[in-house]
This record gives sequence, C-alpha cells and structure tokens, in this order.
Amino acid sequence: MDYHGRQTRLQGSLASHRLDGLLVTHLPNLRYLCGFTGSAGALLITEHKSIFFTDGRYTEQARNEVQGARVIIARKAPLAAAGEWLARNARKLRLKTLGIEAEHLTVAERSRLAKSLSAGVRLREAPPLVEQARMVKDAEEIESLRAAVLLGSSLFEVAIRTIRPGVKEVEVAAEMEYAARLAGAEAMSFETIIASGPRSALPHGRASQARIPAQGFVVCDFGVILASYCSDMTRTVHVGQPSTEARRIYQAVRDAQEAGVAAVSAGVSVGKVDAASRNLLRKNGLAKYFTHSTGHGVGLEVHEQPRIAAAQKDSLGPGTVITIEPGVYIPGTGGVRIEDMVVVTEVGCEVLTPTSKELIVI
Amino acid sequence: MDYHGRQTRLQGSLASHRLDGLLVTHLPNLRYLCGFTGSAGALLITEHKSIFFTDGRYTEQARNEVQGARVIIARKAPLAAAGEWLARNARKLRLKTLGIEAEHLTVAERSRLAKSLSAGVRLREAPPLVEQARMVKDAEEIESLRAAVLLGSSLFEVAIRTIRPGVKEVEVAAEMEYAARLAGAEAMSFETIIASGPRSALPHGRASQARIPAQGFVVCDFGVILASYCSDMTRTVHVGQPSTEARRIYQAVRDAQEAGVAAVSAGVSVGKVDAASRNLLRKNGLAKYFTHSTGHGVGLEVHEQPRIAAAQKDSLGPGTVITIEPGVYIPGTGGVRIEDMVVVTEVGCEVLTPTSKELIVI
Repeated sequence: MDYHGRQTRLQGSLASHRLDGLLVTHLPNLRYLCGFTGSAGALLITEHKSIFFTDGRYTEQARNEVQGARVIIARKAPLAAAGEWLARNARKLRLKTLGIEAEHLTVAERSRLAKSLSAGVRLREAPPLVEQARMVKDAEEIESLRAAVLLGSSLFEVAIRTIRPGVKEVEVAAEMEYAARLAGAEAMSFETIIASGPRSALPHGRASQARIPAQGFVVCDFGVILASYCSDMTRTVHVGQPSTEARRIYQAVRDAQEAGVAAVSAGVSVGKVDAASRNLLRKNGLAKYFTHSTGHGVGLEVHEQPRIAAAQKDSLGPGTVITIEPGVYIPGTGGVRIEDMVVVTEVGCEVLTPTSKELIVI
Repeated sequence: MDYHGRQTRLQGSLASHRLDGLLVTHLPNLRYLCGFTGSAGALLITEHKSIFFTDGRYTEQARNEVQGARVIIARKAPLAAAGEWLARNARKLRLKTLGIEAEHLTVAERSRLAKSLSAGVRLREAPPLVEQARMVKDAEEIESLRAAVLLGSSLFEVAIRTIRPGVKEVEVAAEMEYAARLAGAEAMSFETIIASGPRSALPHGRASQARIPAQGFVVCDFGVILASYCSDMTRTVHVGQPSTEARRIYQAVRDAQEAGVAAVSAGVSVGKVDAASRNLLRKNGLAKYFTHSTGHGVGLEVHEQPRIAAAQKDSLGPGTVITIEPGVYIPGTGGVRIEDMVVVTEVGCEVLTPTSKELIVI
C-alpha cells in the first residue's frame, strides 16, 4: 500500500487548513496512513514529520507494520505519549495549531490532551481529511476489496444450502461465519443479518433464534473483513412458492437496484443515484416502504463516506467504492433488499459483487 | 432487570454532582439503565424525568425494550433530537447544567449538541456515574454472567478437541465460534485469541493463519455475549510433552492466578490483588515477563471498571465481577496465561469459571 504517498498528500494539505499538524487516532485512519492494525496508536503528522506512538503491547507489531513514520513505544497510552512529546517539541517544530479528529476523539481525551500540551499549542477540530482521502480507492485497495467481495459472495452459497423451513436464523449465520473463518476472513464486517418471514421487514434484522417459516422472504445481508478491507452484500431468497405480489415486489426492488447501479458514474451527485433507485420504486407504488438511504462507501470500514442519500451533495469520484441497496419493507408482512458493491469509473461503474440477482426459491 | 431502581438511584445522585440532568449515549449504559439493545439512542435523565430518544429504525424495538422512560421516536439522530427537545423544554424543567458522558461523547457530538441547546444550558463533563453503578452487579446480572460464563467455558471443550499439530489457529477459532453461535451466543465478546508456539508470547495473539506446531504452548482466550452479558476466560494447553521448564512456568502462572483469586474480598484494594499475583511470579523469577495488569471488570462490556492494576486505588465491593488473569510471556519462546471470572463476596469470592486449571497435554 502507498503509505508514503498518503502521508505526503496529507502533509501537503495541512497548511491550506491552517494546521501545523494533525493528530490521528481513529484506527482505520491509522491503518490507512501507516499500516498499523493494532488497537491503540496515535500518529502525529506535521508538514515534515510523521511520528507514531503506541504502547509496549505493540512493540513487535508496530516495528513490523508501521511504514513512513518514526515509531515511539511509550509507557503511557498513545494519546498521552503524543501529548507529552508535543509538550517537549512543539516549540522547536513551530507547531502552534494542532488538528484533532473531532468525530472520533472523545471529550475526555480532548481534555487530557489539552492539559498535557504546553500553553503555546491550540487544538482545532480538523475537517475529516483522512476520511475524504479514503473515499477514493487506489488500485491496490480495489484489489483488496475485490478479494473481500469474492470471499463474501461465496458465503451466499452456504446460506442457500442452509436455509430451510424450521432452521434457525442463527444456524444459517453460524454456517456462513464458520465458512468465512476457514476461508481466511479476520471477522465479519458487521453482525450477520438473516431475517426471515415477517422479520424480513426489519431492515436491521440480526440473525435471531427465530425459525425460518415455510413461506416467505429471507433477507441475507452480510460481509467479511479480509486483510483489513470489508465486503457488504445482500440477497433475498424466498422459501416456498412466492405469490404474484411477492414476485412483483422482488422485481421492483431488483429494477430499483439496477437503476441505481446504472445511475452511477464519476461526476454524478450521490443524491441523483439515490433518486434513480427511489423513483423506480415510486413508479411501482413502493417508495414509502423504502425507509433508508440507497447506499454508503465501503473500504477499511463497512460504513464510510460517501452516504448515497437524498440530502447529500457529494459527487462521486472515480475509484470510490459504494453499495447500492434499495429495499422494500412491508410491516408485519415481509421485505426484500438487494445490495451490490460497485466501483465508480469515468464512464459508469464496475459491479464487484458477482452473484446473480435472479429470485431463488427454496 | 431493575431498570426502575437504576434510574431512580442515578436521579438521586444528580444533585450531589451539581447536575440538573445527565444525557446518556453510551450504548452499554443505555442497556443498563433502560434495556435498549439497539445501536442508536440517547437517554435524558433529570431528577424527575427519563426520556429516551431514538430514530425510526428502532420504533418497534424501543417500544418492546425500553422501560422506565418515555420513548420519543425522532426524525433526526437521537443526540440531535435530545438537544432540540431540551432547547424547547429546559427552561420549563429549570435545567441549567447538563452532564455529558465525557469518556464517550466525541468532540464533534459535543459541539453539535452545544449548538442545538438554548443559551441557558451549560454542558458539564460528568463523572462516570453509570459505569460506577455498573461495577456492582445485582443478583439478576450475576445470573446472566453465570450463564455467559458456562456457555463460554463449554467452548474450551471444542478447543481441546480441535487443537492438533498442523491445524491452523483460525480453524480452532472457527470451530469455537460456530459452537458459540449454535448455542445461542449473540457474538464473541472479543476477537478470539488462539496463540500457538512462539505466538503464545504475544498477549494479544488473535487467531491467525499460523499452523499449530508439534511442540509448545497454545494460549486460548475467548468469550461470548449471551443476553447482552460477556464472558472472558483463558486456558493454556501444551502440544507435545512439555519440558521441565515449561511445566515450571505453567505451575508458576497457575499459582499466581490462584494467589490473585485468594486475595479477592470485599474491601480489598485492587492494587493488593494485582500484587498478590505479581509477587508470586516475582518469587519464581518471572515477574518481568508479566507485562499487563492482573484483571478487569466484566459485565455488559468485556472490559469495564475496575482495572485490577498496581496504580489503581479502587476497593472491591461485594457483587463486583472481575477477571484474574496473570500471564508470563517469554519473547520468541512462548507464554502462558490463565484467567477466571470471579464475583466478589463479603468473605472472599466465588469463581464463576468452572474449568479445571490442570495442565492439558495434547
């Protein structure tokens, strides 16, 4: 991964945000900037320096993983260690305004950091500079995401082998998660959703002790983390012969999903992509049952920028990886969601998820 | 669970901390105070009122789960909804000083909250009132923890059936996690540690693609979440016949663990418990290889207060549930850790973990 380039670009952007330095503590941002995968670290970036702080538990790991930064192993927590180091060195570095990650640092961490600093250093809430950089994936990241997506999609085969009337939802999740682990996944990227029958109308129906009924939809929404990168996909199958209305709803969601995918292209606003899916459902009289946004970025986190939603103004850049996942949820009855991951290109997008969207009847 | 009593006690303590209200957003604290298990909520507690805010995704869940509080389903994020509600109602409630959970609220969340409030309301960083209350478990919580511990300990049977030379660490973790899911665990309480051979010297050796060698220790550290409560245990087995030195190290860790357990009693300082384990290792010339603290509280979170460490001053109260988990890690060679969960009683403690500490040779 291009850790050096990422740090250099961030360093080059500090002055335009009137920052003499940025203190990065959000773990996915650390992973992105310097390769560290442990659970405690702080990276101080100034125009000319990158210094990484961690504690004794991560001595070996930091030496193996961290690139492009000097590593300091501290006796204190990384944030405190960074603060004390700055108290000694800020004047020499002419560091007066230090950016903090306001969306991640807690109020208490900020207070402790402020106390440890010398009087000459001001803290400022920095814009989400690293998150913005992370939106556009480079070729190596896209390969990592492609590998995660392929492993993730193989779990759908496990799901359709396991889903049967009378089987518990958690049993389906257990089989999928077991297969994921054996195939090398570090973890699932979120709690596996297996929502059957009336539960399929819950957009966040985590696999429960409920048994799959003889008749109805089963929403399967799941993903893996492979080499730090996340996958995310949804397919909905039907147990028992679907009614004409169930087939109509499935087809409407499928059309909405494909309309969303078709709308994706570099330069297009995310609101327009959301509208493409939503309008298709509106034409079918189902828009009021589509109660969430159309998608989100995926990378080192399973939910990252941009949000593909009506009120959002971001435009898609080439290399951005997003989900397109409209759904229809009819309370008490059931729901359907179909979700792919796509990578934005200059002329459209490439769908990463290889799995068919034909309705599978079990 | 005694949600009403928990809220009442918190309400009764506000005035002594010069707070007119407390805004709770940390999810385990919400679970503790009102029973909500979703992923987004805010609970406003004043001397006479409890109001819970969540969004439309959790309408049904909040109605089913939340006890002792009025539920408001908002169109905005729960924190923003709470802020706007306060802007309209703070004067009527004579709410002037609102406590925030400084260890959990981010700097950006605090800024947004401050903006939404009327000029008459001050935010103050509250002490960790809910975390302190959570330290002492009531009878129902101890039953929940006991059930989680029993399920967790059953996974060690799976581990010793699976651990063989040549098997990958992640395969052992996969079998354990699969069994946990089938037995009803909602999730593992942290990333399963299976650290074999030289990797057993890494205190946080998450199960990797490494194959278990023909000879050496295998540290197994794992836990489940069952009905929201966490378990946490460690056992170390040996593959192949252990050397005399390996047996000596194992016995020293076992003695240190038992000395720690023997030191636990209501009124004892956590530093004394840490010292009991550490001194035993010192007598065996191994203290310098014990590089972490002796334990931590366990409950709705797998790591919660108190920390069982040298510099800490807390005294143990009856009903507090903690781990006792000394370890010895010899870089490049291997390590041993043994961990039980115990509940503090007036006259000592009860060990919750039922698993033998005899050295198992595979």
